[in-house]
Amino acid sequence: MINVGVLGATGAVGQRFVQLLAEHPWFNLRTLTASDRSAGKLYRDVVNWRLDVPFPENLGDIRISPTTVESLKDVDLIFSALPADIAYDVELACANAGIGVCSNASSHRMGPDIPLVIPEVNPDHLGLIDVQRDSGRDGFIVTNPNCSTIVLMLSLAPLRKFIFSDVRVATMQAISGAGFQGVPAMGIFDNIIPYIGSEEEKMETESLKIMGTLDGKSVRMAPFRVSASCHRVPVIDGHTMAVWTDIREPVDEVKKAFRDYNPPISDLPTQPAKSVQYLDEQDRPQPRLDRMRGNGMTVSVGRVREGIRYVTMGHNTIRGAAGASVMNAELIYTRKYL
Amino acid sequence: MINVGVLGATGAVGQRFVQLLAEHPWFNLRTLTASDRSAGKLYRDVVNWRLDVPFPENLGDIRISPTTVESLKDVDLIFSALPADIAYDVELACANAGIGVCSNASSHRMGPDIPLVIPEVNPDHLGLIDVQRDSGRDGFIVTNPNCSTIVLMLSLAPLRKFIFSDVRVATMQAISGAGFQGVPAMGIFDNIIPYIGSEEEKMETESLKIMGTLDGKSVRMAPFRVSASCHRVPVIDGHTMAVWTDIREPVDEVKKAFRDYNPPISDLPTQPAKSVQYLDEQDRPQPRLDRMRGNGMTVSVGRVREGIRYVTMGHNTIRGAAGASVMNAELIYTRKYL
Amino acid sequence: MINVGVLGATGAVGQRFVQLLAEHPWFNLRTLTASDRSAGKLYRDVVNWRLDVPFPENLGDIRISPTTVESLKDVDLIFSALPADIAYDVELACANAGIGVCSNASSHRMGPDIPLVIPEVNPDHLGLIDVQRDSGRDGFIVTNPNCSTIVLMLSLAPLRKFIFSDVRVATMQAISGAGFQGVPAMGIFDNIIPYIGSEEEKMETESLKIMGTLDGKSVRMAPFRVSASCHRVPVIDGHTMAVWTDIREPVDEVKKAFRDYNPPISDLPTQPAKSVQYLDEQDRPQPRLDRMRGNGMTVSVGRVREGIRYVTMGHNTIRGAAGASVMNAELIYTRKYL
Amino acid sequence: MINVGVLGATGAVGQRFVQLLAEHPWFNLRTLTASDRSAGKLYRDVVNWRLDVPFPENLGDIRISPTTVESLKDVDLIFSALPADIAYDVELACANAGIGVCSNASSHRMGPDIPLVIPEVNPDHLGLIDVQRDSGRDGFIVTNPNCSTIVLMLSLAPLRKFIFSDVRVATMQAISGAGFQGVPAMGIFDNIIPYIGSEEEKMETESLKIMGTLDGKSVRMAPFRVSASCHRVPVIDGHTMAVWTDIREPVDEVKKAFRDYNPPISDLPTQPAKSVQYLDEQDRPQPRLDRMRGNGMTVSVGRVREGIRYVTMGHNTIRGAAGASVMNAELIYTRKYL
Repeated sequence: MINVGVLGATGAVGQRFVQLLAEHPWFNLRTLTASDRSAGKLYRDVVNWRLDVPFPENLGDIRISPTTVESLKDVDLIFSALPADIAYDVELACANAGIGVCSNASSHRMGPDIPLVIPEVNPDHLGLIDVQRDSGRDGFIVTNPNCSTIVLMLSLAPLRKFIFSDVRVATMQAISGAGFQGVPAMGIFDNIIPYIGSEEEKMETESLKIMGTLDGKSVRMAPFRVSASCHRVPVIDGHTMAVWTDIREPVDEVKKAFRDYNPPISDLPTQPAKSVQYLDEQDRPQPRLDRMRGNGMTVSVGRVREGIRYVTMGHNTIRGAAGASVMNAELIYTRKYL
Repeated sequence: MINVGVLGATGAVGQRFVQLLAEHPWFNLRTLTASDRSAGKLYRDVVNWRLDVPFPENLGDIRISPTTVESLKDVDLIFSALPADIAYDVELACANAGIGVCSNASSHRMGPDIPLVIPEVNPDHLGLIDVQRDSGRDGFIVTNPNCSTIVLMLSLAPLRKFIFSDVRVATMQAISGAGFQGVPAMGIFDNIIPYIGSEEEKMETESLKIMGTLDGKSVRMAPFRVSASCHRVPVIDGHTMAVWTDIREPVDEVKKAFRDYNPPISDLPTQPAKSVQYLDEQDRPQPRLDRMRGNGMTVSVGRVREGIRYVTMGHNTIRGAAGASVMNAELIYTRKYL
Repeated sequence: MINVGVLGATGAVGQRFVQLLAEHPWFNLRTLTASDRSAGKLYRDVVNWRLDVPFPENLGDIRISPTTVESLKDVDLIFSALPADIAYDVELACANAGIGVCSNASSHRMGPDIPLVIPEVNPDHLGLIDVQRDSGRDGFIVTNPNCSTIVLMLSLAPLRKFIFSDVRVATMQAISGAGFQGVPAMGIFDNIIPYIGSEEEKMETESLKIMGTLDGKSVRMAPFRVSASCHRVPVIDGHTMAVWTDIREPVDEVKKAFRDYNPPISDLPTQPAKSVQYLDEQDRPQPRLDRMRGNGMTVSVGRVREGIRYVTMGHNTIRGAAGASVMNAELIYTRKYL
Repeated sequence: MINVGVLGATGAVGQRFVQLLAEHPWFNLRTLTASDRSAGKLYRDVVNWRLDVPFPENLGDIRISPTTVESLKDVDLIFSALPADIAYDVELACANAGIGVCSNASSHRMGPDIPLVIPEVNPDHLGLIDVQRDSGRDGFIVTNPNCSTIVLMLSLAPLRKFIFSDVRVATMQAISGAGFQGVPAMGIFDNIIPYIGSEEEKMETESLKIMGTLDGKSVRMAPFRVSASCHRVPVIDGHTMAVWTDIREPVDEVKKAFRDYNPPISDLPTQPAKSVQYLDEQDRPQPRLDRMRGNGMTVSVGRVREGIRYVTMGHNTIRGAAGASVMNAELIYTRKYL
């Protein structure tokens, strides 16, 4: 068992990390960090547990550590749910101190020697860990993409055998994506907010790196464009997206590609039976009914129509955040980087 | 004053017609029809008034008529809020009997001699009324487009001076668009339904007729394509849309076109001060905050970005249905067809 | 294993029955009935599965039977999720034909020889089965109360040792209680409907029977009054209730009664570890966070204050409907009535 | 015209004040205050206008003042939408400096010489202004009750001719009551929060003062008890309440009392045609459909049943806050205190 910790364990993504790691077969969750104000207190006394699954009582007695390298002596791997503004320095310090860092924060994602990985899409990008090590870093930083980018990328993974150069995506994103306090009810009830800070830019740049080619010591960006329009909608969990591509294959071929999709990796504990599930019903996927497929790790696709356009949906705090990071760590472990 | 009636006066759109006509300066609402079951009863006893504006008490004593030509002897103009399946025959019979019909139903919209009109966009298409009359019809049928098509078309109206051939639109449509009973709460709470029957087809075909050219006795379709992806979201009123065009003008030129837009018609009682309102704030338009601009008749636009892409939003049962039809009738009146 | 069936297997409560019985240790689900229109088709082709747990694929190939006694030859026990208007005759016919009937319908609840049972509250009322058998019925009918009544009764169970004669309860009931089609979104979005047909009457009468005394061949009503005010609120699952009693014990004694509560029965497969869970946080219970406690079978209680008043909440389609009926069947089985 | 100001003009209640005063026949809105950070800027540049009525453009150019007595030299009357913690001192300073203060804050409500007034219920309590003046204060402080208390009191006003000593009320309160930022969407979506800080205490104490008797220089509390259970529900505006009294009159007498109710004051500009509206439909009042009756100033009542119990509902930020304060000021003006 690898000893692991979670940085920022009380927030929306932090709680998902704790939930997913509570009974993990390979990882032993020992350390939880939060703000200095909480340090020294028991997790159960500090966390305002907001998930609709029961609180993992076995972890309630972990005493909160401050978010510093010194607090992490006993762990080999950390999962970072820190806000981007404080994540950069802490994660770097941890990696330099020999700790493996799997981060959901955006700070390092576009760094040239930082793998930005979705296991099914670009597992080979983990090779950048070697670049980090060659530069003298004992640990490493591996990042997962932004939540909506992950859903989009997984939906495109079965279509990589077709040629496309132009992707347009309109997102309808859940309120949990902004954290527990992020969206006031008065702002989103009976409403849509057609703007999410930096979200469109993240989708447009991260996608190209993820689908890019690892070329020696860096990633060559993929040769397509993404144009995103991002909207917050009154849904609790699950990001839904309308996608257009310039794929010109027949609709049936594209449906078949979705149905036949097999990812290049397998047998990771957090990996669902189907990473991408095609739904035939004309009114699916729907976030409330489909977000928990594969324990929240399956991305659903439906409504492939001439265009090629389709609709995709995935759970933003599981597949799009904490689950993504945990699955990355599992891949890293099988690749002997830990 | 023109005596007018409303067909299907108890439904969601019918109630909006009644609200908008209750104090109209040119039209005198005398006749309300509903199902045979309601015929003979007072409107106030039959209608389950669901609008959040007060019931127009002065109309409560109108006695419901059956939905037949015979019931409409006293009116010169009718507004049809009938379901498409029964609208076709009734509307035709009325028009043939010399009554002017302004219909919100889809049945006749694509008929070759039927004007499909948005006053600000294609007022000249009313010329098809002459074609109808030349064929021996005493009255006429004029239709307004589907609710989401209207919002899209008005948002594109200021951009007609630019060249575009490709429009993609992802809609986030309000539940009122399906009528009072159309969407079960269990279906749409905390959810998105990525399918609305026939909606995409309507947007893709109606748009080309509306922006087409009246060429003698028929309309030549406009030479662009619309590709739509339509979604129901948990919002009461107001259809929001993410739009992509292939306009290549600079963003500032496009914003200026929105700001400077002046429609070719004016001074209709239902016409708002601004048919299209550009909003500078980066997180607008929002349905709850912007749908009642111009008493529900203004279409709001925001977030023009490179692409050219933008977000637009309009009230679906006012500008997108009853208000559209009433404004068409006002235009018809000023053009002396009544 | 007892062979069982579900009557009305496609509705909201019917689907919950199927979910709960899919892997039941004692009951083998063999027969599913629905409307005549669906008879002969596969369950998977007929059901519009709306629960947020995966469809039990192993039951998808059951062929739908019509809702008649003849269809139920192979089962010893049926669960009825029928609407009240058709449940009365069918359930009676089944019971007379020797089948055990556990019904969620209201039709027979107040019948003098019909047990109206919550296992933790009045298990001895099953004695009425003997009365039914004495009258020549081979099978039996056992009913569970109305959903909101169940939650109220379980919350009062720990307080039976105190004297009370006056209960007031204001309910805030979830939309799933009206079935999948029961509440139009336009009716309940951003709204409360302060009326649910017959609900107040059910709470006020059923409660007295449930807490009544089995006295030979009938139940003597409990000597207290219930005054209910029932409201539909925009919540998907989980009925919340504000309760006042005239208990005059100190608040701490009442809290202790909740915390120390042990029901008189145990070890039923569907029974949760805690039938009643007292929550100390001042802002609990909350339906979204607490409804799935005990797999939806735990009733949560909080905010005991001077009065004695408190707040209680339970899952209406699990503890308040299908789960209640299944747990009744389990109790019946352990009491050798099957 | 009386020159007036609004303290705390950018929040939820502050915006309502601005809306209601924008075209007031007696009051001329000249001064708006906000936090020091906003002082010196134009109101239009500072306010994030969140109401669904248009921004009053004519007030947009008012330059924000700091919330100090010095800023208020030019006004004779101020409306306070300040948070309770800072309201106490500022309001006192203003009143001592000769300014009339109509406050929506809770700080001074229970002060022995402070009128806590609802114009229709206890207009004579304004006599406490004389007590304030006798103590040397040039201005005055007059408060309006808590939002839910106002709705409850108005619903009880028509019943004062009956004897009652026991009132129980379960509230279902809108999210706007907590201000624009008060309730995170993740907390209240698909949920109920059965706790609102201090709300029950306010209802239980303020009610007794409002219905108390002005007895020389102080108010003798009314001889009844209120027991409240307060809940936040997913509704934007409008507090709904289930009320029990121990009135023993026949239901029809109570309905008649509601229908025949005439308040003791009249002709105030903000006063609605009916302060209390009885609705006969069995499923009313409903917040979305009834909250805007009387421009948000009418309290609706329905479902009078044996008990006597009933349901009432009123707009919390209009009748329950800003409108209450403005109507108090109008009463004060007619009583020559200004």
